[in-house]
Amino acid sequence: MPSSSLSDRGARAAATPLRIDYDAFREAEADLFHPTTNPSGKIPLNIAENRLSWPELKSRIEAIAAGEEIADWVPGYTSTRGAPAFREALASFFSQHLAGEPMDPQRFVVSAGATGVIEMTALVLAEAGDVAVIPAPCYPVYERDIANVAGMERYDLVTRSAEGGLADATDFTIPDLEAARSEIESAGKRFRMLILTTPNNPTGGILGVDQLEAVADWCVARKIHLVVNEIYGLSLIDTRHPAIASEYVEHRVFTSFAGMIADRDCDYLHLWYALSKDLGISGFRVGMAYSHNEDFLTGYANLNLTHSVSNHTQWLLSHLLADADFMTGYVSRNKDRLTEAYVFVAGALRSMGVSYVPSRGSLFAWINLSEFLEDDSEEGELALWRDLFDTTGVLLTPGVGFGHACHGLFRVVYPCVSHEALAEAMRRLAGFVRGRRAR
Amino acid sequence: MPSSSLSDRGARAAATPLRIDYDAFREAEADLFHPTTNPSGKIPLNIAENRLSWPELKSRIEAIAAGEEIADWVPGYTSTRGAPAFREALASFFSQHLAGEPMDPQRFVVSAGATGVIEMTALVLAEAGDVAVIPAPCYPVYERDIANVAGMERYDLVTRSAEGGLADATDFTIPDLEAARSEIESAGKRFRMLILTTPNNPTGGILGVDQLEAVADWCVARKIHLVVNEIYGLSLIDTRHPAIASEYVEHRVFTSFAGMIADRDCDYLHLWYALSKDLGISGFRVGMAYSHNEDFLTGYANLNLTHSVSNHTQWLLSHLLADADFMTGYVSRNKDRLTEAYVFVAGALRSMGVSYVPSRGSLFAWINLSEFLEDDSEEGELALWRDLFDTTGVLLTPGVGFGHACHGLFRVVYPCVSHEALAEAMRRLAGFVRGRRAR
Repeated sequence: MPSSSLSDRGARAAATPLRIDYDAFREAEADLFHPTTNPSGKIPLNIAENRLSWPELKSRIEAIAAGEEIADWVPGYTSTRGAPAFREALASFFSQHLAGEPMDPQRFVVSAGATGVIEMTALVLAEAGDVAVIPAPCYPVYERDIANVAGMERYDLVTRSAEGGLADATDFTIPDLEAARSEIESAGKRFRMLILTTPNNPTGGILGVDQLEAVADWCVARKIHLVVNEIYGLSLIDTRHPAIASEYVEHRVFTSFAGMIADRDCDYLHLWYALSKDLGISGFRVGMAYSHNEDFLTGYANLNLTHSVSNHTQWLLSHLLADADFMTGYVSRNKDRLTEAYVFVAGALRSMGVSYVPSRGSLFAWINLSEFLEDDSEEGELALWRDLFDTTGVLLTPGVGFGHACHGLFRVVYPCVSHEALAEAMRRLAGFVRGRRAR
Repeated sequence: MPSSSLSDRGARAAATPLRIDYDAFREAEADLFHPTTNPSGKIPLNIAENRLSWPELKSRIEAIAAGEEIADWVPGYTSTRGAPAFREALASFFSQHLAGEPMDPQRFVVSAGATGVIEMTALVLAEAGDVAVIPAPCYPVYERDIANVAGMERYDLVTRSAEGGLADATDFTIPDLEAARSEIESAGKRFRMLILTTPNNPTGGILGVDQLEAVADWCVARKIHLVVNEIYGLSLIDTRHPAIASEYVEHRVFTSFAGMIADRDCDYLHLWYALSKDLGISGFRVGMAYSHNEDFLTGYANLNLTHSVSNHTQWLLSHLLADADFMTGYVSRNKDRLTEAYVFVAGALRSMGVSYVPSRGSLFAWINLSEFLEDDSEEGELALWRDLFDTTGVLLTPGVGFGHACHGLFRVVYPCVSHEALAEAMRRLAGFVRGRRAR
């Protein structure tokens, strides 16, 4: 622990890097691959960013900034729920592209990025020590986001299929939830919140409508908050693409939780969204929660000034989202680009003989390299991860922290680099795999 | 308390409006004064915004957005300390206009507005239950900012001159601090932090260099964190202006705490700043802390993703701040505009026979209407405040919450409306004063 000039929590934070792959990422950034100027450089595939559609979006944003006069409300304080103009554009966009039905801008609250929304939601809904259940494998940083200021604990619900290795984390059942609840309550704690992510990070799994409905009813009956995170809701893979269609047992359609919230109109159902992934602008730090719980929205708003989003950014993005024609085209083209990159990676993995979860959405391939573990443990996994990076310059995210029981699984972010860099990364990974198998 | 679907802190937040004058402000906003279209409309002078220089700044910001290509780092994740390019521009700006000596961009951390910086600082430096001492009268919302997530308590150090009514809150002494410390420790608590605001909100007082030096040494010797908030550091009144010069016993020059931090190079001295007031862009939500405490900066950065500022805004403002010629002219013209508006308000108050603290900076006149109290109590003050609003449509901020002992003091924000609106507000206030005295 660093010096006592800090609080205990401050000292803990100072001693805890943001993420396990942070230092390696800084190394990679200092020596980035470039096809001509640095062909042996590093290729980080560990940050959940979609860079494929940025050129298109950038032009549009520059055109708005050049063509529109900054609105009068931008320099001053606005609603701590988010600027009304932005929430209107957002509700309209979300209605059209995700919910498929009208949504009330008054039921949105906006914060600095998804991570800000998660922190705020935990703060307003849960006491310190309360437990959030998250089907595994799932996003490691939930743990920090619900704990840092809210003091919530994470419980990883390892689904049966995931016990065996690769699985898309969608196959949990009501009895699984009951079992988790018993275990949590036996430990003298409270199962306060269930967090579902669909499409899932890292597996790309999508929850079915019947499953969501059943889980929602189960949660409502038990006064457990159910939050569905749809941050990858428009980052969808076309599972009917001929190169991959045969890998899917069924062709699930993503269905937003918004309609189920509206149908039930109760205090325990909520939705998270952000523009970070679907628009590839995590740097703009725009996240939001949607709920029919008026007290939640009011309490949230009264604490949210410290997490608020620049009005200038809200203003700019309200113009962007309100351009329905552009956004419709963008969403479609972005999906095509994602599918194309995914198809490429899936093909490369197949030809290496590396297994992966057939993805329906999100920005990831969730792959199994456990055959190369020298030691079937967390240490073994980290050693393999580091070895892969040192040998090939390809930086993945190790499975540790995603909350499941197996070792040797890794997350590959495929739309965060150019096609050339991705192709080079797959070539190097194939070489690594061949070399290891030949040992 | 609202429904039990929230946590205790969430329910508390839902039941506690952001500020005492919030509802009245919404009323005022719905019926705003306009010289021709709504001459009997409301004139809110209670939000700490400087609108006088926005037209100039807006043009410059629009020109940057129209002329510059968005940098590659904008859409992605950047340092949680703040984007390096922005911290460089900020350090350079702060050095030139406030510190007068070079500052290291690595010693800045950037968060969503001053309020985000205050919350983060309290979280990293103090345990829940620790006490922050604040010379009174001072900014009411400090109380929420240090308590909401960090759980700190506010202790108002009422300076001797302030006991009698109007005072600029700069006359506290080391024995005053010793007395506060004894009282806090007798209650079994810890005096963890001293927060000074210079220029002060609401009094416009400026701390002298000798005083700051002495207080800094006292704090360092006792391992008490001293944070100096210079958010109004460039919002200065020209106290040599002929219409007001005679009101000042001395013509103090504002001196930034930055140099004293550099001289002492220790873990217990910190500085807060924000672009909200000096640039009149509170809506852009850009605040920052500066410190030589490396652990503080690291711990802060590791918790700061939830409080981070839009990269697009950081990018835009880095271009703005880096334009040294423009900023130098802007700072000077803004000071002229502030002084002009202040001189007008001071003259109006003098002609009404309403006393006020001669201001050296910030956006406020701190005035005494206690002669009109029907009841010398908090309730009496709120009744007078509401009566003034109902009678005249002029909305001030009541002194309750600023932490001093007297009733009947009010804060007037003078640069938040046009000159016409300000003149109308002063006419109405004069009428109110005349009417009350004639009763």
